[in-house]
Amino acid sequence: MIIVKIGGGDAINLEAVARDLAEINRPFILVHGANALRDRLAKRLGVERRVLTSVKGYQSVYSDEQAIDVMMMAYSGLRNKRLVEILRRNGVNAVGLTGLDGGAVQSKRNAGVRVREDGKLKIVRDFSGKPQSVNKALFELLMNNGYAPVLTVPTIDENNVAVNSENDDVVAKVHEAFQAELVIQLIEAPGYLKDADDPNSVAVSISRRDLEKIEAEADGRMKRKIHALRKLFEYGPTKVVVADGRIDEPIKNALQGKGTIII
Amino acid sequence: MIIVKIGGGDAINLEAVARDLAEINRPFILVHGANALRDRLAKRLGVERRVLTSVKGYQSVYSDEQAIDVMMMAYSGLRNKRLVEILRRNGVNAVGLTGLDGGAVQSKRNAGVRVREDGKLKIVRDFSGKPQSVNKALFELLMNNGYAPVLTVPTIDENNVAVNSENDDVVAKVHEAFQAELVIQLIEAPGYLKDADDPNSVAVSISRRDLEKIEAEADGRMKRKIHALRKLFEYGPTKVVVADGRIDEPIKNALQGKGTIII
Repeated sequence: MIIVKIGGGDAINLEAVARDLAEINRPFILVHGANALRDRLAKRLGVERRVLTSVKGYQSVYSDEQAIDVMMMAYSGLRNKRLVEILRRNGVNAVGLTGLDGGAVQSKRNAGVRVREDGKLKIVRDFSGKPQSVNKALFELLMNNGYAPVLTVPTIDENNVAVNSENDDVVAKVHEAFQAELVIQLIEAPGYLKDADDPNSVAVSISRRDLEKIEAEADGRMKRKIHALRKLFEYGPTKVVVADGRIDEPIKNALQGKGTIII
Repeated sequence: MIIVKIGGGDAINLEAVARDLAEINRPFILVHGANALRDRLAKRLGVERRVLTSVKGYQSVYSDEQAIDVMMMAYSGLRNKRLVEILRRNGVNAVGLTGLDGGAVQSKRNAGVRVREDGKLKIVRDFSGKPQSVNKALFELLMNNGYAPVLTVPTIDENNVAVNSENDDVVAKVHEAFQAELVIQLIEAPGYLKDADDPNSVAVSISRRDLEKIEAEADGRMKRKIHALRKLFEYGPTKVVVADGRIDEPIKNALQGKGTIII
């Protein structure tokens, strides 16, 4: 069983991903993002991204109710359903799911962030949470009956409230449950670039030890992504291929090990 | 097995519907709209409703790709997922579905409308279609394993393209497949009003013969709704209760036959 994670960028070739998945004929769970689409929608709706600064100086995005609404529209609505449509048109019997549906991905709500507002210290808690487990039985039920799960955020917290989570953490928990033999991460680059500005600097392979070094040196979103990759291996042995999602045969290319292999 | 259809108006008490469904403990398929939400979203996004006038003078809404995008965001995204969240919070193990997921609702794409543009006759075809059948096996798979399906548009056409359909027609096809003993339609009124402007004019019961008369006299959206109600009985005997969705115990109230009963 393989896990395919599709980044949320606009340049990912969804039609080609669907064609490949229909042809390779291997059971899979697809996890997808939609951040470019979400950002565009938020802008059109005039919904601003709120950023919190903690008393210690750390910044984080604040997911209020409106942010979850926009996430539901962009990820669970538009992107998930268009992806199901494209997959079906290519012969894949796809069923779209969010972490909410059947409690597919259960999270623990994040503790609040300590901030100073109007000179007063307070704890601000948003709608975000860390995935703890997946409903393996639901995924198996679908897969054993010929359906291909297409999963995205939000996830659901311990009080059955919809929360924002990182799709990378969702992937890690799907792997924990299924012990996937392979995780394909499709991105808008030919693989992991040693020099972010040089598309010819693809690292052919990265060891887990390298990952630690890269994580220590990275920052922001990339640091979080590398951290999630590293965590993946803690949930069971697997092989990760970070590969180009923009090309004609993105899955076949990744299956041939083209891109960056992490073992 | 019962079918619960929730209208897409803002005044429907979703929390109360969820509480009731958790308590009555009967297998159900819920079909919901989101038209008020969709209209608001379309306005915020500046997406205009296109109306076609056929050469014979009939008017119809034109569902272009953008209209389907907005439908996916409002119906399949925001409303479906918030409803799943509310149901789960009340103890119902809900799974949200559109007609696309697993081919849950298969439609036949509508033939085009003959219009005159710039003096020329042409056929304009939009993304709309008429539900033909449901994937009964998928609904049974979910229900037999403790999940409650929460279904909405779009549906999927014969070429696996997402199309706009009437939720009333979706309900009819679910009934055809499941031969529901009861169909509850929750609306923003205490039942079917003999005088649309008088909330005290609720018809306690309507015969199928009455329905024909009402359909002949109605027009526009109401005519279509009554027609769909009438069609429902052609797919197998059932009992329909049109009841108030705005109150504290909307499902229990309907189960007591309060509202308008159609047999």
